[in-house]
Amino acid sequence: MIPGPVKVPQRVLRAMSKPMISHRSADFETIYEDCRSRLKELFETKNDAVVLSGSGTAGMEAAVGGIIGKEDKIITVTNGKFGERFTELGDRYGTAVLLEFPWGTPFDLDRIEAALEDGAKAISIVHNETSVGIVNPAKEVGKLARRYDAIFIVDGISSIGGNEFLTDEWGIDIAITGSQKCLAVPPGLSMVTVSKRAEEMLEDGKGGYYTDLKAHLNKSRKNQTPYTPAVSLFYALQEALTMAAEEGFPERRARMAGLAKGVREAALALNIELFPQVNEHSTYSNTVTAMKMPEGVTDGQLRGGMRKRGVVVSGGQSALKGKIFRIGTMGACTEADVLRTIQTLELVLAKEGVISSLGAGVGAASRAIDG
Amino acid sequence: MIPGPVKVPQRVLRAMSKPMISHRSADFETIYEDCRSRLKELFETKNDAVVLSGSGTAGMEAAVGGIIGKEDKIITVTNGKFGERFTELGDRYGTAVLLEFPWGTPFDLDRIEAALEDGAKAISIVHNETSVGIVNPAKEVGKLARRYDAIFIVDGISSIGGNEFLTDEWGIDIAITGSQKCLAVPPGLSMVTVSKRAEEMLEDGKGGYYTDLKAHLNKSRKNQTPYTPAVSLFYALQEALTMAAEEGFPERRARMAGLAKGVREAALALNIELFPQVNEHSTYSNTVTAMKMPEGVTDGQLRGGMRKRGVVVSGGQSALKGKIFRIGTMGACTEADVLRTIQTLELVLAKEGVISSLGAGVGAASRAIDG
Repeated sequence: MIPGPVKVPQRVLRAMSKPMISHRSADFETIYEDCRSRLKELFETKNDAVVLSGSGTAGMEAAVGGIIGKEDKIITVTNGKFGERFTELGDRYGTAVLLEFPWGTPFDLDRIEAALEDGAKAISIVHNETSVGIVNPAKEVGKLARRYDAIFIVDGISSIGGNEFLTDEWGIDIAITGSQKCLAVPPGLSMVTVSKRAEEMLEDGKGGYYTDLKAHLNKSRKNQTPYTPAVSLFYALQEALTMAAEEGFPERRARMAGLAKGVREAALALNIELFPQVNEHSTYSNTVTAMKMPEGVTDGQLRGGMRKRGVVVSGGQSALKGKIFRIGTMGACTEADVLRTIQTLELVLAKEGVISSLGAGVGAASRAIDG
Repeated sequence: MIPGPVKVPQRVLRAMSKPMISHRSADFETIYEDCRSRLKELFETKNDAVVLSGSGTAGMEAAVGGIIGKEDKIITVTNGKFGERFTELGDRYGTAVLLEFPWGTPFDLDRIEAALEDGAKAISIVHNETSVGIVNPAKEVGKLARRYDAIFIVDGISSIGGNEFLTDEWGIDIAITGSQKCLAVPPGLSMVTVSKRAEEMLEDGKGGYYTDLKAHLNKSRKNQTPYTPAVSLFYALQEALTMAAEEGFPERRARMAGLAKGVREAALALNIELFPQVNEHSTYSNTVTAMKMPEGVTDGQLRGGMRKRGVVVSGGQSALKGKIFRIGTMGACTEADVLRTIQTLELVLAKEGVISSLGAGVGAASRAIDG
């Protein structure tokens, strides 16, 4: 029950054991074409989609390395761990102007506008901050990016497919996701969409070589890749996108929303405080719920006790280590998975004397998921 | 029967369908530790080995981007298509001094020495030039690199595990291979070994971000990766290395050597000329055999005819398109695979009137493989 890499459905695992084909064959091109077209549906975009054989970080490097040159600035808005990666990337290829908010707190849009007024070629945000369970206001930042003519880069790695994500409507120039989150594919692929406006800024020889966005875009138009792709993961991606389309992209998001609501309601019933602060633009995530460690129990007792009972949840990262714990509800996650997780949490809390009776959390979760 | 990606054995395919684990778990660390230790055997080195979740090109970028900075020169010795990639990488991160020999001809060691005399931080070669089927003299270039104190980078992507490859004895500072060649794993992983001398030159923030060699080395010492690894491909790599160790690394190389000799003897018997020119330092490859297109048959007739009969072989690349064809004998390739390939080749040549009777090629191949 961690926020990725998530459990991979049998159908997807089986797809990976198909015999190997040459990546220069028509068979591969058919698979890539199918994936690219379904990805456009998933990202709600008319922009072109490419698949990189690398983790989400490869996609982030493709975006920043493609757009930001030595003389350029990128504003990297951050309220959690994964925002930091954009700052490192910005400083590798140009200059990152870090706009930092306390972890798990909403962005201050006025401060973002003030930073854009100072001028920057691009601005990046993490849509769903996995480290703190908050969804950041892509729509609002997108409006500001357009007003100040900055390229808008969004890390949607743990978001796309689970939270609402409207690439075109929100004016997102480059959107990135990873295979191992809401799509429930093994890790190793990164999917990136690129607007015409952003594409015009890509130049030969800019950014990383393996993650060269221009090279990937050019080759993708013939359903090919510049370097050897991870063919078996493409099999898995195609199968997972087919499964997502069968379930329906909106229905799939609604399922994850219901499961996360179940976790939040269970927390409320168990007197566990949710970690992120939300407001009218920044909301709780459908894909990961971050909760404060209840008083009277340590991280080792809570997560260790759950693990002993067969349920793995995540802890806090960096300064939040030991202070929060996180439950993922993405991908193929089911109501049964959530109920078992909450039940196990209750057992551990009861054992440690934090709660005195069982059932309140499971009851609240099941009522919430039932709608 | 192409020179990679090659057929993947069932055992390796099955390993990939194991349930997903967290890459931050002890289970993953055990797998990575096991792979790293077996890779040192495979590379015949005491140097540390890392696995990147990307194709061989990612490994090449890790090497060049890690060593070559803006002011540095790298001599890129080339006699085929894959050498060109080092030149592009050298020019991306510093300056590539291209030392080009006609495709498929041996290196002139005096010219290499003269280039080193002019001064360069590094020199790169492709050990097994897949595009032309030649094995380049890594041992001799290694001696020169040491004499002129240049970092020696070797692309062993289609070589390691198939041809003799002595990383330490030949003084190779950075050696690279890919998963989809002699190890018969699906594509998507790149394995890199790094000498102490080379490691001392790695700096924070240098080269590509996703392929940052220093970050990968540092994390690997805790059997971890800087970014999310392609976990299912690590399952496959572990299984393939186990299989290779069961067969025995030298026995495995000897098998591929025998199969390639079978292809060469068949070519001789069928009056088909081998493409590469060899000498005392540069030899025919154990993993791919390049042959000139016989007179009286086109590329479309030869390869198309074989494909129609269920056997896929490769054509020539770039200027060699239509002029040569190539048969891979790497990975899990068997005597039966080679005999069927030669038999199919004979059928096609007979149909096109190039040969008048069947059997000479298959006979020569089977005698050669039988030793």
